[in-house]
Amino acid sequence: MVVGSVAYDGVETPHGRVDRMLGGAATYISLASSFFTKTRIVAVVGEDFEEEDTALLASRGIDLTGVERVAGKTFFWAGKYSDDMHDRTTLTTELNVFAHFNPKLPESYRSEPYLLLGNIQPALQRSVRAQMNGLRLAGGDTMNYWIADFRDELLGTIREWDFLLINDSEARMLSGHHNLRKAAAAILDLGPKALVIKRGEYGAMLFRSDSYFIVPGYLLEDVFDPTGAGDSFAGGFIGYLAEKGFDLEAHQISRGELSRAVIYGSVMGSFCCERFGVERFRTLTRDEIDARFEEFRRFTSF
Amino acid sequence: MVVGSVAYDGVETPHGRVDRMLGGAATYISLASSFFTKTRIVAVVGEDFEEEDTALLASRGIDLTGVERVAGKTFFWAGKYSDDMHDRTTLTTELNVFAHFNPKLPESYRSEPYLLLGNIQPALQRSVRAQMNGLRLAGGDTMNYWIADFRDELLGTIREWDFLLINDSEARMLSGHHNLRKAAAAILDLGPKALVIKRGEYGAMLFRSDSYFIVPGYLLEDVFDPTGAGDSFAGGFIGYLAEKGFDLEAHQISRGELSRAVIYGSVMGSFCCERFGVERFRTLTRDEIDARFEEFRRFTSF
Repeated sequence: MVVGSVAYDGVETPHGRVDRMLGGAATYISLASSFFTKTRIVAVVGEDFEEEDTALLASRGIDLTGVERVAGKTFFWAGKYSDDMHDRTTLTTELNVFAHFNPKLPESYRSEPYLLLGNIQPALQRSVRAQMNGLRLAGGDTMNYWIADFRDELLGTIREWDFLLINDSEARMLSGHHNLRKAAAAILDLGPKALVIKRGEYGAMLFRSDSYFIVPGYLLEDVFDPTGAGDSFAGGFIGYLAEKGFDLEAHQISRGELSRAVIYGSVMGSFCCERFGVERFRTLTRDEIDARFEEFRRFTSF
Repeated sequence: MVVGSVAYDGVETPHGRVDRMLGGAATYISLASSFFTKTRIVAVVGEDFEEEDTALLASRGIDLTGVERVAGKTFFWAGKYSDDMHDRTTLTTELNVFAHFNPKLPESYRSEPYLLLGNIQPALQRSVRAQMNGLRLAGGDTMNYWIADFRDELLGTIREWDFLLINDSEARMLSGHHNLRKAAAAILDLGPKALVIKRGEYGAMLFRSDSYFIVPGYLLEDVFDPTGAGDSFAGGFIGYLAEKGFDLEAHQISRGELSRAVIYGSVMGSFCCERFGVERFRTLTRDEIDARFEEFRRFTSF
């Protein structure tokens, strides 16, 4: 089960520009996880949400019972990437119906064992988790805004999580440490049993109390559009763990299994960047995913 | 055999400041490679070169026959690192006796099979290579200055190399491609049979015409001083290949062996950062080196 934004995005990169296309964290997470497991979304959209976008999600077998349609417009974001795509500038943020998003879980969702909380207000993430009654693995994402201005609320929320997925600058901000090894140790002390630090083109790191794992980023020939790569990573990560039926506590997921989930996250993030928006997920196959997983093994083993 | 600068450095990092200490590319390269193989230096120093610094190099079994001592002062460089140590500012560069460095190879060096050319003027690198008569593996480093202002001279030099070791910004500058996969392909077309791209804290990449390998950086708790890390990497890389007796052409070094050389390079670069200047090499042992090699295996395998 995935909770988060479903949105329309306008994106400009050195490779081109799209004024309006399907986006949002929950969209990317659920599309990516749908290649591994049955996925259900909780989100809100406006009256302008297109039938073809509903159809794309449904075509991937995603359960949309929890997508509420209300009066008003769908969340809209527009941004522009720098020439090297290391920086992006937000041009427009229109929260629209997302401003009053209060996740309501269909009864049929409450016993789902795997929960991925996309980046929304920490109190809402916490309320969603509290509505679940058979969780085996729960975690999510957050962002600088909540770390800076809603710190206590955020700490109360992630304390209950099995895993936290954030990027390197957020890890530094949350922990107060520049060094990522120290940052990770400090964050694990805040409650999460596992920490995944996403580093964009430089890959990802996984920390647990007794071990760590680092994978470099996949070397794409062309990065068309990095939008959604981090959320696609999250979808691949939780999707793989759900597919395998893992449970961080009871089943004592091995370091190897959790590392492989990080690789599947990296694989999904890399595919996401190959086309604008969610385009790559329209044609992607599980065979391509598994082939890239093996490619990761080839270019990292020695 | 290593050719390059032997210098005194002044370094300031967030962890402290040292006004004058042993430094220089050839110093770091040869200290690192001395843990793997008998190493010989070609360099020039001034009358101020201290007996204790000669003694340190000699204590590692390094052959100093090719270190010429001439009238004047030893090359001096001073720099200061930014708080996150991603940037450094050069405060002083006094070339001194290094300004007229014209590498003279002792007769006893000319049949050495392994050659690492530190960053000096490309024409000098070329003349050194031409004086050797039994090379099995030769390569080296360069820098932005030679890439920008001595391009033809540099291209004529690296065309004859088995491997080129540069950092990511130099690879972009040399190739004209921002994307490192494209940059690497373009550079391999210039002649080198293997390309190693150093990415600082993000690790290193190895490219050959038919394969590539990427390793993330080692996660140090504290980076005291990154000075010399890239040269220590080079020393570990060539040192391991020399120890194993590899030959890029004739022996067809396997992808695995060259990858392991990249890991030993990464190991030596990481140790270098643990103390100021060359300090860490005073106490380092081969057991510690091999233990860290195994640590690389643990935190990267899945």
